[in-house]
This record gives sequence, C-alpha cells and structure tokens, in this order.
Amino acid sequence: MTTAPDPRSGILFTDQYQLTMAQLYFEQDLHERDAQFDMFFRRYPDYGRHQAGYCVAAGLEPLLDWMEWASFTAGDLEVLAAQRNRDDSPRFSGGFLEWLEANGDFSSIELHAIPEGRVVHPHAPLAIVRGPLAMAQILETALLAHLNYPTLIATKASRIWEAARGGSVLEFGLRRGPLWGANDGARAALIGGCDFTSNVGLSSSVGVDPKGTHAHSMVQVFMALGGGELEAFRAYAGLYPDDCVLLVDTIDTIESGVPNAITVFEELRAAGHQAVGIRLDSGDLAYLSIQAARLLDAAGFPDVGIVLSSNLDELAIWQILSQIDIEAPRYGVDPEALVGRLVYGTGTRLITSQGASSLDGVCKLVAVDDAEGRSVPAIKVSDNRAKTPIPGRKSVWRVYDRRGIATADVIGLIDERPGRDNTLELHDPFRQGVGRTLKSPDIAELEPLLERAFHSGSKTRPAPDLDTMRERRETDLARLDPGVRRLVNPHIYHVSLTDAVARLRSNLVEELVGE
Amino acid sequence: MTTAPDPRSGILFTDQYQLTMAQLYFEQDLHERDAQFDMFFRRYPDYGRHQAGYCVAAGLEPLLDWMEWASFTAGDLEVLAAQRNRDDSPRFSGGFLEWLEANGDFSSIELHAIPEGRVVHPHAPLAIVRGPLAMAQILETALLAHLNYPTLIATKASRIWEAARGGSVLEFGLRRGPLWGANDGARAALIGGCDFTSNVGLSSSVGVDPKGTHAHSMVQVFMALGGGELEAFRAYAGLYPDDCVLLVDTIDTIESGVPNAITVFEELRAAGHQAVGIRLDSGDLAYLSIQAARLLDAAGFPDVGIVLSSNLDELAIWQILSQIDIEAPRYGVDPEALVGRLVYGTGTRLITSQGASSLDGVCKLVAVDDAEGRSVPAIKVSDNRAKTPIPGRKSVWRVYDRRGIATADVIGLIDERPGRDNTLELHDPFRQGVGRTLKSPDIAELEPLLERAFHSGSKTRPAPDLDTMRERRETDLARLDPGVRRLVNPHIYHVSLTDAVARLRSNLVEELVGE
Repeated sequence: MTTAPDPRSGILFTDQYQLTMAQLYFEQDLHERDAQFDMFFRRYPDYGRHQAGYCVAAGLEPLLDWMEWASFTAGDLEVLAAQRNRDDSPRFSGGFLEWLEANGDFSSIELHAIPEGRVVHPHAPLAIVRGPLAMAQILETALLAHLNYPTLIATKASRIWEAARGGSVLEFGLRRGPLWGANDGARAALIGGCDFTSNVGLSSSVGVDPKGTHAHSMVQVFMALGGGELEAFRAYAGLYPDDCVLLVDTIDTIESGVPNAITVFEELRAAGHQAVGIRLDSGDLAYLSIQAARLLDAAGFPDVGIVLSSNLDELAIWQILSQIDIEAPRYGVDPEALVGRLVYGTGTRLITSQGASSLDGVCKLVAVDDAEGRSVPAIKVSDNRAKTPIPGRKSVWRVYDRRGIATADVIGLIDERPGRDNTLELHDPFRQGVGRTLKSPDIAELEPLLERAFHSGSKTRPAPDLDTMRERRETDLARLDPGVRRLVNPHIYHVSLTDAVARLRSNLVEELVGE
Repeated sequence: MTTAPDPRSGILFTDQYQLTMAQLYFEQDLHERDAQFDMFFRRYPDYGRHQAGYCVAAGLEPLLDWMEWASFTAGDLEVLAAQRNRDDSPRFSGGFLEWLEANGDFSSIELHAIPEGRVVHPHAPLAIVRGPLAMAQILETALLAHLNYPTLIATKASRIWEAARGGSVLEFGLRRGPLWGANDGARAALIGGCDFTSNVGLSSSVGVDPKGTHAHSMVQVFMALGGGELEAFRAYAGLYPDDCVLLVDTIDTIESGVPNAITVFEELRAAGHQAVGIRLDSGDLAYLSIQAARLLDAAGFPDVGIVLSSNLDELAIWQILSQIDIEAPRYGVDPEALVGRLVYGTGTRLITSQGASSLDGVCKLVAVDDAEGRSVPAIKVSDNRAKTPIPGRKSVWRVYDRRGIATADVIGLIDERPGRDNTLELHDPFRQGVGRTLKSPDIAELEPLLERAFHSGSKTRPAPDLDTMRERRETDLARLDPGVRRLVNPHIYHVSLTDAVARLRSNLVEELVGE
C-alpha cells in the first residue's frame, strides 16, 4: 500500500469539475492563457459562544511539497480515459489527455503566499496562484484543502495557547480526529500553539518528541490481575523513573490516585529521581487540581506538574483558571503557583475545531489574459456584496503604527507602492464610501505579507522549521492589539483596500450591472 | 513521496502512550496475556438544533486493510530507538524493540466488528479486539481513528439522504474538508447516503463515477474576455452535449442564468441531445427552484434536473422542501414534480459533520487473562456511571418484533444464547433496576450483529462493494421505527443488557467500591 500509487493522494485529489473545465479551456484554446486566482477566507471562525479575531496561517509547506511531485501519471490518465459520458463516448478527448500527459504538472504555476505561522485576516489573499488557466484551475481544490483545515486548526491551537497563560499545551486528538487528516491537524496545532503532540508518526516527521502518560487501562490491568493502582504506578515509575507522569483518576482522584502517586513519588525521590507530574482526566478539573496541589505541596512536591485533560478548549481552560484564581486561596493554595504548574492536554475540540468546524476559504479568478496577453481583471457580482471578490493583480501590506502594533492589512494593486507619500487612503472592502486616511506618524512600517513560494516546479526556499513558524506566530501576536486577541467578542481588525483597488472594483461592478 | 515509507501512515499512526504502556507490559511479562478491548460510542451526534437517533457504521474495511500491512518497520524501530528519557537514556529498551521487530504486527489480533453500512447504537460494541495485551493496546488509537470519523460522516450522510426524500445526494466537501481525511469522509458519505462525490481520486478507488458541473470561474473567464454567460454555456454544452448541467447564478439566476440555459438547452434539443440540468448555488434555493422550474416547464423542459448547493445539510434541505410544498402551488408549480427533479450537492456541512464534529467512540479494556489463562473481567468505576464500561467477553444481538421492526440491541455474554426460552430480561445499562421483559411474540428474530472480520493477519472475507454496504444501510433503516429516524428529537432506541451482563457488572462495581 505504501508503494502502490494511490489515486487518492496524487493530482486526482481534486473535484471533477476542475477537469471538465480544464478540458473546455483546452478545446477553446484558452488553457494556456495566463490567469490569476486568489485564495482568501471571508470570515474568522465563530465558535458560537466565542469568536476568533485573527487566524494563524498553516498548510503551505505540505502544499508546496505536493505541488512539487503531483502530476498526471499514466495511472491517473487511465482513470480519466475510462470515464464515459451518458452516450458512452469518452468524457475526455485523446488530445486533452495528451496535453495533460505533457503539461499536467505545476511547473508552470507561480504561487505567492503568506508564510506559515503568520497571523492572517479575512479577504486579504493567503495565496495567489498565477499560471496557465487549465493548470491553475486544476490546482484550486488541492490548494483550498491544504490551507483551509490547517489554518482552522492552527487558529484554534493559538486560542488555546492564549487561554493557557504560558502553560504547555499538548495535542491529543488523533483518536477522534478526521482519520488521516489528524496528521495535518496535529502539524497545524504544533505551528499554532501546541508544544507537543501524542501522535508518534507525525512527531517524527516534524522532529519533535511525542508526549504521553498512560491510560486507565494500565491501572485496570493491574486491578484485574489482583493488584491495584499503587502496583500499577510503581511499575510505571520503575520503568520511567525520570519521566513519570501518573494518571490519578481511575478509581478516585483525591482518595486514591493522588495519595498513591505521592507514595510512588516519595519512593522515586528516595532513589534519587524527580517525579514529573500527575494527570487529571475527569471531574471538576479546577477543584481537583487545587486539592491535588494541596496534597502534593504538603508532601513536599511543589514542582510536580499537573496535566489536565478531558474536553479542553480555550473556554474550558479559561473557566478552569478563573475558578482557580478565586477558589485556590480558600484552600491555602497560591493560585499563581498552581497555574504555573499546569499543563493542558487538548484533543477532540482542538483537532475538529469544535464549534466552527471549517474555514470558509475560497479560490477566486481575479484576472485572465486576453488574446494579446494583456491581463484583464475578472469579477463576479453576487446578490451578497461581501461575496464579490476583489479583482485584479494584487499585493497585501500590513501597516504598523509607532508602537509597532499592526493596525490594518491593506490590499493594493501589484504595481502600487502605498504610503510613499506618507499618507494612505483606506477603503472598507464592502461598504462603499466608508474609509479613513492614515498619515505619516500612523504608518511607521509597511510590511509586504506575500512571498514568492513556488516557481518553475519547486519551492523557492528550504522549508522553515517548526521553531521558525512558531516564532512568526509569537511575533505577530505580540504586535496585535490585545482587543483583537480577546477570546470573546474580539475587536474587528481592519482589512482595507487602497484607492486604486477600490476604484477598479467599483468600475467593474458598474460596467457589469450597467450591461 | 508515494514510494518512501511515511512514518505518519504506518504503525506509528498512534499515541505515544500506547508504546510506553506496551513496553511496561513487556517488562512485566504481561505483554502476551490475552486481552479484550471493546470499541463503542456513548452518545449519538447532537447537532444542537437537531439530533441523531441512530448511527451508520463505517470505516471497517480501510481499518482491516491497514491492519493487514501495518507493522513495525526498520524505520519505525529507528524512530523509537532514537527517543530519549529526560536523563538521556533510551526510552525503549533493546529487548522491547527486538520483541516489536519479531511480533509488532496484528497477526495475533482477532477482530469482531459490525459490518459497514449497518445501523448502530451507543454502548453496543462496534468492534471487539482480542489478542496479546501489548499489540491490542497498540491497535487502540488506529482503531478509533478508523471508525470514529467515518461513522460520524456516514451518519450525517444518512440524515441528509433522509431529508432528500429520494433525491440524489452528491458529496462536494473536499475543498473545506480535513485535508487527507476528506478522502475518508467522502467514502463514508457514499456508504451513508450519497450517490456520488466530486472527489476524483476517491471515486476511482471505490469504483463510482465522479460528478461535477462547472464553476463560476468558467463564466467569469468568458466575461473577462468579452463574451458572456451565454457563450460560456454554449461552449460547455458543445463539449458535453449529453451531460450538460449549467451553473446559472453567476450574474442573476432568474434574469440571466435560467434564460441563457434555456436558450442553450433548446439548441441542444435541436441537435438531438437532451439537457441534464441546471445548478443553483446561492440565494433562496426554494424560491429560486420554483421560479426556475416555471421557466423550464414553460420552455418544455419539465425533466431537466435542478441541482441545489450552498451550505446544505439535513435541516436546510428539510426547510427548502417544506417551503416548496407551501409556496410552489402559488406559482402554478406542482411541488411533488419539483421535489422529484431536485438533486442536492452537499459539501462542508457534511464532510465536517457540522454541529457535531466528532463521535465520542472509545476503546475500553473489558477482560484480561490471569497467569492461569482464565479471562478476568476488567472494570473502571467513574464518578459518572454512564462512563463505567460494560465488562467481560460479550456478544450483541438485535431484537426484531413480529412486524420486522428492530426494537432493541442487547448486550450479552459471549456464551449466552438469549431468547432461547422465548423470554428476554432486559436491563437498562445505566439505571439500576430499570428494565423490561420481552416475551415470545415480541422476539420474532434475534440477529447477532458482530462478525469475525480479522484473523491470523488477514481479513476473513473479501471486501464488500459499495452497493452491498448501501443495501445494509437501507435494509436497516427500513426496519427502524420512524420515530427513531426522525431528524429532530428522535425516539431513544433501546440498548439493553442481559441478566448475566447486568449481574456481572454490578458484582464487579460492588467489589471495587467495597474495597
């Protein structure tokens, strides 16, 4: 299975209409016209009771890897050659299949994209595809699939990381994740805010150590065989004396689990080892962590960590920490010290982005060359003005003020150099006539966000390592207004159009509606 | 990439703690003790405003395929050998790695499971794993990942299929699905109720024809190049004269799209071809489909299909059809005829099971052999009685009444033959003392649900084809009470314990709590 070419992982990882349209372009001799598609999302994830004020870009490097190798293989072409129309004629012509055989890869595509780990916002393109119309069209589905879900999960991970107040966050979602997509989700979670994952294969592929403790079943085995929790803990500590994290809720957390863990931790200490932690996986995690901390403190283990798990997400963690802030002093436990020793295992709610299970990223045609090779902006007018894409060849800049805080993302035309004259006219993308003018002191820096990522069939630079992507995220978050980072009802970050783009769009809309 | 062994897709597609526990069992000489784990889910998906009353099992065949080939390769063992404890000692001993090299596959595992496509309910095991403790433990994560997400998506697809009143349902979710998991989701959707998917590679792998129409971008290309919607439609119809489905909402559905489509359909008819359909992808789909039907009827195309898409799920479809029932007669359109020509393209909300993004399936140790080879039932008592698994070696039967309607799933011990004496004592799994007695006329049939699926390293029978799995689903749905199939507030289907299991569990709980 690992060696046979799998039609599900190659260039046929696409929607059928991409292929029927590509053939139409071929028949119309439009297939090699230079075209541009913008990939962007329209809305931040809204989890119901809480909402994202920013997203974290993820998924680019695996996309580029895929674009480097994906092409129409002999097997793929056979699959297409076997498709039949209703009248039993072949759906794809010999001529088109020959063209695919010779040209059916992404070596003609140029991709600009915002690097992984960067904070991103709606409407500003995360990726811009340029290339021959047929292959640019065929790339659409895979491009969206590679960026939508990972960006969704990196965003969720970043929110959980924010809620965790600096505590370590572990990704544990494999078992209830979207099967093979759980690998992609775990990678995105590591970019977005998780320190580690329990996923062994994925950890190995990105070069981090996988993390885990033990399951209830281990304690159950000892119990069924006539032993008990203490024997199970002893066996585990004996094997992992310097890495010992014990799951204490199989029988009763406070009556049995924590006392047994303390017994074993004392034995470890006597043998010259340092216990690492306990794990709480059920019940009132705030209350139980306070009680566990009391017992551990009293036994002389103030530095032993407390791993929390069980349906955690950003709101659950926020609630637990708020409860600890209020309730811990009542039991003589210092809330800050307790919060400082907490570690969070987060699974299902992270890997499925519970509450907002998709990012609404789209890929829209914004320009295509005419017969003379001049780029013509393309537009689609929808009943819903927010669905009318922004036409033309574009760039995206981020504006920082004197404090170094990002105040807007600005979408301009590719040959614009906004801010040159120390002033910037910004237009709301969807409400005509709404805008503002930024003047010099508020434009301390203008940073272009898109980088050329793929060209001539290859990535333009080596893959960044995980730490680089994480640093991008932390740097961007530090430059974001705290109101935008708020977990509930965040401030709306400004994404604006330059004069030139706003004019281009309203002219095109007028032309079309006027027709 | 397709030829290199990928640590993410092999036996390291697991949680780290499975490996550290397996090593512990090895060190304790418990690793080859025969053990049993039951995989079951606790709750039907609850989508917030609507709730599932049943699930559809999916994911088994890909799991069995994976179990056939997955094993600890030299590369996997190197990954494990490189892991280090905090004191820099190797985390996994040479002895354990040698054991894995010799025994690290699933040839020693026996798996019983409910076949794909069957209707399933909480607490009754979907799969039962038996085998040496270490390898049974290592299988846990992959087993859950293979069954949870596909069962979730097959369930969602079945609900959408129920809402569609016999209309064709197409899966379009690839672009916003969970990256590589979208293939698994599409397969599950085909089992659960979708007739086709747009996913080309996945379609090829399961032997169905992929479906698609065209995108807005195709119309935009023609518009940008000086043509218009009509030229785009003509080009498409010219290339696919017998398979022509036209997307009519790029400019204005009723003013432009449908009239242009009718013009092209007339041209097709004049040339001896039959138009297939139009597709509506935005706006008030009920209203627009009524207006489109009027125009198509008036032009002599009463048989042309109308494909609806745009955020469809079971509730959206239900609402659209209810609105058509009421509103169509007002415009002289026969609602039944209109509903009969509708086709549903469903994407994001299906592939992410929006509203309930995970199934809570778990895998619990229920028995392990003692040193004499006697199977000992295992239990875990939780604060939450609903989380206390049902111990021991078990079977599952479905009870049908005289009408052929399924009235309960019954969990018994493996050597029980319930109903032999024409009476069946049923116990509520979680409320002590609650139960009922079924007598002969209400036990027309007792069907065992679990089949031996994997043994000696291989599947026990050839993979069922898609039609077989779909027939299982349709047969099971026909034998389900309509109240259980209801999309909102369904009746609760009975899952019960036999006397013997109920007694075993309460004895074990008493022993444990008594300690």
